[in-house]
Amino acid sequence: MQITNEERDAVYKTIYARRDVRGEYKPDDIPDEVLMRVLTAAHHAPSVGFSQPWDFVVVKDKQVKQQVKQAFRVAHDSAAEMFDGKKRDQYKTFKLEGIMEAPVGICVTCDRLRNGPVVIGRTAIPEMDLYSTVCAVQNLWLAARAENLGMGWVSIIDNPTLQNILGIPEHIVPIAYLCLGYVSKFHDNPELEQAGWLPRANIDGLIHIDRW
Amino acid sequence: MQITNEERDAVYKTIYARRDVRGEYKPDDIPDEVLMRVLTAAHHAPSVGFSQPWDFVVVKDKQVKQQVKQAFRVAHDSAAEMFDGKKRDQYKTFKLEGIMEAPVGICVTCDRLRNGPVVIGRTAIPEMDLYSTVCAVQNLWLAARAENLGMGWVSIIDNPTLQNILGIPEHIVPIAYLCLGYVSKFHDNPELEQAGWLPRANIDGLIHIDRW
Repeated sequence: MQITNEERDAVYKTIYARRDVRGEYKPDDIPDEVLMRVLTAAHHAPSVGFSQPWDFVVVKDKQVKQQVKQAFRVAHDSAAEMFDGKKRDQYKTFKLEGIMEAPVGICVTCDRLRNGPVVIGRTAIPEMDLYSTVCAVQNLWLAARAENLGMGWVSIIDNPTLQNILGIPEHIVPIAYLCLGYVSKFHDNPELEQAGWLPRANIDGLIHIDRW
Repeated sequence: MQITNEERDAVYKTIYARRDVRGEYKPDDIPDEVLMRVLTAAHHAPSVGFSQPWDFVVVKDKQVKQQVKQAFRVAHDSAAEMFDGKKRDQYKTFKLEGIMEAPVGICVTCDRLRNGPVVIGRTAIPEMDLYSTVCAVQNLWLAARAENLGMGWVSIIDNPTLQNILGIPEHIVPIAYLCLGYVSKFHDNPELEQAGWLPRANIDGLIHIDRW
């Protein structure tokens, strides 16, 4: 199946317009069919040995969200202590999640025993199932952006706590807690770049030919 | 920036038409500007704390490829031993890489010390840098498909061996060795699904509401 130049450009537009959204969520509901479209796009990510190791816990309940928010608060407070002086002050000014504001949370997990014990392509690199699940997250992110939905990845959270809140079985690993919702705007650039925290790296310095 | 319905559909078309390509590479060169477009799309993946931990080793040299192929052979032989009876016989019939045929190999790596020691969003989940790098791989994969380039992820390989072949410094982790090239065709469905190795899971069984 051929992708046209116009379709290619739409993919690039979506890749470059994607943001990690924290502060601009609107309370508008996400229609079920839209939510199913982005989840189905995630489900069509590549997976090692076609093992499809992912599950999706869709969180709409306010009380569950409040527990997740509390878990974020604890992890955020201890994170702040790790930064020195001025960096710590700046860190504390950043809004780093939209757990309560986003109408939908999605925890994407990885079942490390699925279709095992021997999975094609996972024999030399056992982390491949985790990586497959991250590919599903990135598919979900781009599908969401294509639906003009903002998404943010909340990584400042203790996974065992999250696992407990969501009743996730022990052998299953939470990979990402995502916030999803329509937004008032998308930033032109990553917020940490705008804030002067770090610059965009020059890609030329990241490319090596034949050997490092 | 608004994504139109046509643009959204192009993103979905690309997501669903993406395949893990092993056997259909054509020797045609990839123009430099096309290669730079897909690498730049990868570089615009989300990264934890805007740390951009990735590098790209672009392999075109035949001798380097031969060493990578040899590393695959060793890992593939020991993988075959892990399957039982009929599964082993079927495993051996699969073509699982296109290292020599694809005109370009790309090793995507993760620098675990980049912009450290404290990275925003990596304080509770230290694997976030690895996950960011996988997001870059998936951006690269979709950009490649949008360019009608096939891509395959070679995960049957010993990472220390690969690291040695490519001269990758010790603190840097190889995440993916990718094959890239134009193709004679894209399969309609994943090859392991076609071969009856595993079926596509029903998505309804993978979605949980509010709690697992």
